[in-house]
Parts: sequence; structure tokens; C-alpha cells
Amino acid sequence: TDPQRIAVIPGDGIGVEVTAAARQVLDAVAQRHRIPLSYQEFDWSCQRYLAEGAMMPADGLERLRPADAILLGAVGWPGVPDHVSLWGLLIPIRRTFRQYVNLRPIRVFEGVVSPVRGARPGEVDLVVVRENVEGEYSEIGGRLGRGTPEELAVQEAVFTRAGVSRIVDYAFALARTRRSYVTSATKSNGIVHTMPFWDEVVAERAAGYADVRWDSEHIDALAAKLVLQPERFDVIVGSNLFGDILSDLGAAVAGSIGIAPSANLDPTRAFPSMFEPVHGSAPDIAGQGVANPLGAVWSAAMMLDHLGHPDAATDVVAAIEACLLDPATRTRDLGGTADTRAVTDALLRHLV
Amino acid sequence: TDPQRIAVIPGDGIGVEVTAAARQVLDAVAQRHRIPLSYQEFDWSCQRYLAEGAMMPADGLERLRPADAILLGAVGWPGVPDHVSLWGLLIPIRRTFRQYVNLRPIRVFEGVVSPVRGARPGEVDLVVVRENVEGEYSEIGGRLGRGTPEELAVQEAVFTRAGVSRIVDYAFALARTRRSYVTSATKSNGIVHTMPFWDEVVAERAAGYADVRWDSEHIDALAAKLVLQPERFDVIVGSNLFGDILSDLGAAVAGSIGIAPSANLDPTRAFPSMFEPVHGSAPDIAGQGVANPLGAVWSAAMMLDHLGHPDAATDVVAAIEACLLDPATRTRDLGGTADTRAVTDALLRHLV
Ligand SMILES: CC(C)[C@H](C(=O)O)[C@@H](O)C(=O)O
Ligand SMILES: CC(C)[C@H](C(=O)O)[C@@H](O)C(=O)O
Repeated sequence: TDPQRIAVIPGDGIGVEVTAAARQVLDAVAQRHRIPLSYQEFDWSCQRYLAEGAMMPADGLERLRPADAILLGAVGWPGVPDHVSLWGLLIPIRRTFRQYVNLRPIRVFEGVVSPVRGARPGEVDLVVVRENVEGEYSEIGGRLGRGTPEELAVQEAVFTRAGVSRIVDYAFALARTRRSYVTSATKSNGIVHTMPFWDEVVAERAAGYADVRWDSEHIDALAAKLVLQPERFDVIVGSNLFGDILSDLGAAVAGSIGIAPSANLDPTRAFPSMFEPVHGSAPDIAGQGVANPLGAVWSAAMMLDHLGHPDAATDVVAAIEACLLDPATRTRDLGGTADTRAVTDALLRHLV
Repeated sequence: TDPQRIAVIPGDGIGVEVTAAARQVLDAVAQRHRIPLSYQEFDWSCQRYLAEGAMMPADGLERLRPADAILLGAVGWPGVPDHVSLWGLLIPIRRTFRQYVNLRPIRVFEGVVSPVRGARPGEVDLVVVRENVEGEYSEIGGRLGRGTPEELAVQEAVFTRAGVSRIVDYAFALARTRRSYVTSATKSNGIVHTMPFWDEVVAERAAGYADVRWDSEHIDALAAKLVLQPERFDVIVGSNLFGDILSDLGAAVAGSIGIAPSANLDPTRAFPSMFEPVHGSAPDIAGQGVANPLGAVWSAAMMLDHLGHPDAATDVVAAIEACLLDPATRTRDLGGTADTRAVTDALLRHLV
């Protein structure tokens, strides 16, 4: 059979380092499971922007289109405004390829010390299902009276029935494969047009999953509960903004944002899905070879799963678990001293 | 001199219980400092809504108008939708009286165990300065195609130069009385119209406070840092929504939302300011006499400060500190067994 085509965008800073690690791990596990993969690398990044004035070429999205999946490192660099780097690359990929699900698993692994006292290894295991293409991250808005004392800026949040329904359906279907419990993040007491609509659609869709328990929490209280009782949650479904906040907070609760993976999925499979660690390009440690590659590696495991190789994915996650159990193969963000190389080698040893 | 007039709205659930406790404490400290206070109680609540169809009378705001301050317990009850109870009482008060500052101090007190390992008593001491009248909580928005598959809801976030400037100025001026460090909550990488505007205004205003150190963090990363390094922060300034999320999360990090106070301030003093605990009406424990009154009591201390009685405010906070130091006078939410009565009595003993 033809190999599955992976488009690789290492991006900026530690994105380059962790993507290299993830590729090595992919090679090892692909060999073990006889999965034919082919790669095409794209140097789209802030470096490219600074040199050529665009994060990616004009036909960039066209070139990604035939890929079976996209593996991304991290995007962003000092001197390039975030809205340039992200809206010139990451966000267009998410939107053009209708990657309407952003999936962000959060686990406290054995060997990792959570900053939260009650978050014991093995007990915290949740997934944030984040709506990824509409909501608060809208291009609709602008300014009035620029530069005047009366200046104002407006921004429209847009929620569609179709958009909310499909993300809620995804969350409930996912919950069925887990502990059958969904929590919806809302703020209908303060954001009185879009959030009551979100609540209504959630309630309607939930009615189709009588076997799944569910509740709804305001984002302020939910953020607090994620710290107070993280073990309580199974699947949390939230809007673009709320999912973003909860998944970063959750990654902190899990012990390090360096471990946290994410999948930007088009569940219809009409377009390639994209897999990226939650962490950014980390200019402060870039180029030193000390970045934690586990977020990128776990993201690669999610990619394998999406591409139809659940056993290979399971092997990679098992290698991550083994690696975290050994103090000698934990990176600095986890209180260890291992560098990216040492962690990658350990993963490869577990995968032979 | 004429007594200062306090309008008291106990509201719903434990709001009634904690407000009663706060009033007793106010009486004690007022006597000690010879502060003449007069009270007028209003039974505006969800009970009233259920009986009479409105949270407050049509001239409710008029009746509050002459007060020097408003002391509120909590609003909300099962069976009454949040947008009815809150937008029928709390939000109109905040807006009509231009209470554009929502001030939410967060401290880990001695005697309190934070759920966050690194949050040691005495070391975490920050204030969230939340914009309280504009931003994401806007009445502008609505639905299209109600009930159809094409239905959508939109909501406009509105940020004005005047509105952002004054909250930022408030935060920087406050920082000068503390550790001279401000962190601005943003999300200009995702919310590309209003948040870059927020960032610009923050940078402009900050230039007028050369003695105050400041930085800016995206809300997702900031939520994570509030768990990872809460001791790092001094003053955090954020929009209506971001301030709401961070202050609830902060209250959790501080060990209990039952302690957290808030002040809704009109710093121009054209209108009465309002003081309320961060916690809600807590239907699950309402009527049992076990609610933690400290959030309401600390809010009352903030009121005393606002009314020009800083020494009395200091005494109340000292009583709270003493109360938390003694395991016998900690409520259930803090791992103790004391009821509201016992805590209130302890506070009163400290204030004679
Ligand atoms: C009840 C709700 C509207 C309110 C808010 O978000 O402002 C509450 O959470 C608060 O923080 O006072
Ligand atoms: C960089 C930013 C636009 C992005 C987001 O908020 O979506 C990031 O925080 C993420 O979570 O992938």
C-alpha cells in the first residue's frame, strides 16, 4: 500500500527540536508495526516571515491539502506579533481544513508531581474537547475612531447550531469510550446571547445520549474545580476560548505543559488533521536541546491513532509512561536533568 | 455627623446567613471606632422574583441611589435562570452605578491549606482588578433563524479607550500602594480585534507609571501560572470575563472561595459602590448555618475602607486572620467543623 503522507511543520524555537524527536519516535514505532509513512517537511515559520514576508507561501494550504496528517511543532517568535505568526499559519490551517475538534488529553502520569496537592498520578485523566473554528476567535470586528479618545473596538463571537452540535456530539461520543461523563463549560450568566444558546444546544444533543451523564459549569467555577477536584472530570467540552483556557490550566495541573498534546481534527476526514504539542516555541530555552519532547511525541501518538494505528499509538504512550517513571529520563520542567536527546533515546529503547 | 447609609441586600441562600454575620461584625467594629452607620435592608432576591415577577421593584435602583455603599450577600436560586436573577439585580447595579472596578484580593492566610502545593501562607498576596461594566458581558447580540438548523447566535464584545484606560489606571495606581507590579491579562493572539486594542491601551497608560513594573500574559498561560507560581503576582488587570475567571481560580488557589471578597467600585464616588463575597448562594448548604461568613466579612472590611475607615477595615482583617489561625474556628470548606455562628462569635471576640 501507498505510505501515509505526513506534512511536517517544525515551525519555530523548540518546535524544531521536539518535532525532530517525534519523527524519530514515529520512525521507530512505524518500523515495529510495519506502517509505511512518508514525510514532507515545510520550513514555514517566523524565520520565513522575517525573510520573505509571509509565514507560508501563497499556495501553502494547497500544498498541505493532499497530506493524510500534519505534524506541527510550535509557531511564534519574539519580534513577530502573535497575530501575524498564528493567523498566518496555525489558524488558517485549523479553519481551512475544518479541524473543528481540538482534542487535549490531560493525565497526571506516575512519576510526575502535580502542583496541585490532590492531583494524584493515575487519578486525573480527562480530555478537553475544544471547539476549534468558530466562537470567540472570530475575524468579525474592528475599531471606530482610531487614535481618538472615543476609540472603541468590537469583536463578534459567533456560535452556530451546526458548529455547537457537532462538537457536542463529538464530546458525547468520546465520553462513551471513556467514563461516560461530560461537563459543558458555559458562562450563560454573564454572556447572555451566545452562551445560553450554547447551553440549549448542549441540552438538546445530550438528550440523544441517555447513557452519558452530563452537567454544565460556568467557566469561572470550572477553572476553580479543575484545581480543586481534577479527578472528577472525564470529558470537558468548551468553546474555542474556554477550551483554550481550560486545557492550558489542565496541562499545568497535569504537572507540565511540556507533556500536553493536542489534535486538531476534521472528524469527517475530508481534510488532513493536525497534531501539535500544547506548548509554544519557548524562545527562552530554544536551541539548547533541553526541551521536553513528550508533548510532541504524545501528539504524534494521537496522529497514529487518527491514521488507523491504535496499537502503535498505545505503544508510544506506553513508552512515554515508562520514560516518566524513570527519574533519569525526566526533563527540567519535570524536576529532572535529562535533555531532549536523553528522553528521545529512552523512548526509542522502549520501542525496539 | 450623619451616619453613613448602608443598603443591605442579603439576597438568596447563604447570602442571607453571611450578610447577617457581616452586619454583626460591622456593628462591633463601628462601635469600637465610633463610626455611625445606618442600615436599610432590601429583600430583593429570587424569592421575590418568584412571588412578584421581578428581582427588585421598578424603582429599585432609585432607592439604592442615596446609599453610601451597598452590601450584597449572594443572588441566584435553582428554578430561576441565572440571566434572570443576575441581570435583574446584580448587573444593573454594577452598570447603573458605574462600578467599573471589580476588586478581588486573593491571599493565602496562615492556617489555610491551599490546594496548590507551592502556595504557602503569607506568600500569595495578589489583587485581581477586573473591568466591570463593558467588554465581553455585553447586551449587544442575538440570534438568527431561531429554531432552524441554520440558527446562530452572536455576541459583541465592546472595549472603549475610556473604559480600558480607567481600569488600567486604577490597577497601576493600586500597584503603587503594593509591590508595584502589574500583569495584564490578554488574548491578543486569538481574539484579534478587541484584545490587541486592550494591549495598546495598557502599554500607553503604563508609560505614565515608570515606577511600576508590568507585563502581559495570555489568559491561557496566565491561568496556568496562577497555579504554578501564584506568589509571583501583585496586581492582575483583566477584562470583565478574564477577571472573572482569574479571580475565581485565584480564590480556589487561596484555599476557599468562601473567604474571597469583592468590591464593585465607582472610584469617582458619584454613585454608591457595592461589596459582595465572590461565592454564590450555595443552595446545597443554604439554611444550615454552616456557611463560611469570611468572604462577606472581608467584603464588609473593604466597604469600611472605601467609606474612609481604613483602621476599622484593618481591625476586621486582623480578626479574620486570627480566626483562621485557630482550627476551632474554621468552617467546613476549610477542613474545620465550625459553623457560621462560631466563626462570627470568634470575630466578635477579636473585635471587642
Ligand atoms: C454571576 C455572574 C454574572 C458573576 C460574573 O461573572 O460577573 C459572578 O460570577 C461574579 O463573578 O460576580
Ligand atoms: C496561539 C493561540 C492562538 C492558540 C489558541 O489560543 O488557539 C494557542 O494558545 C493554542 O491553544 O493552540
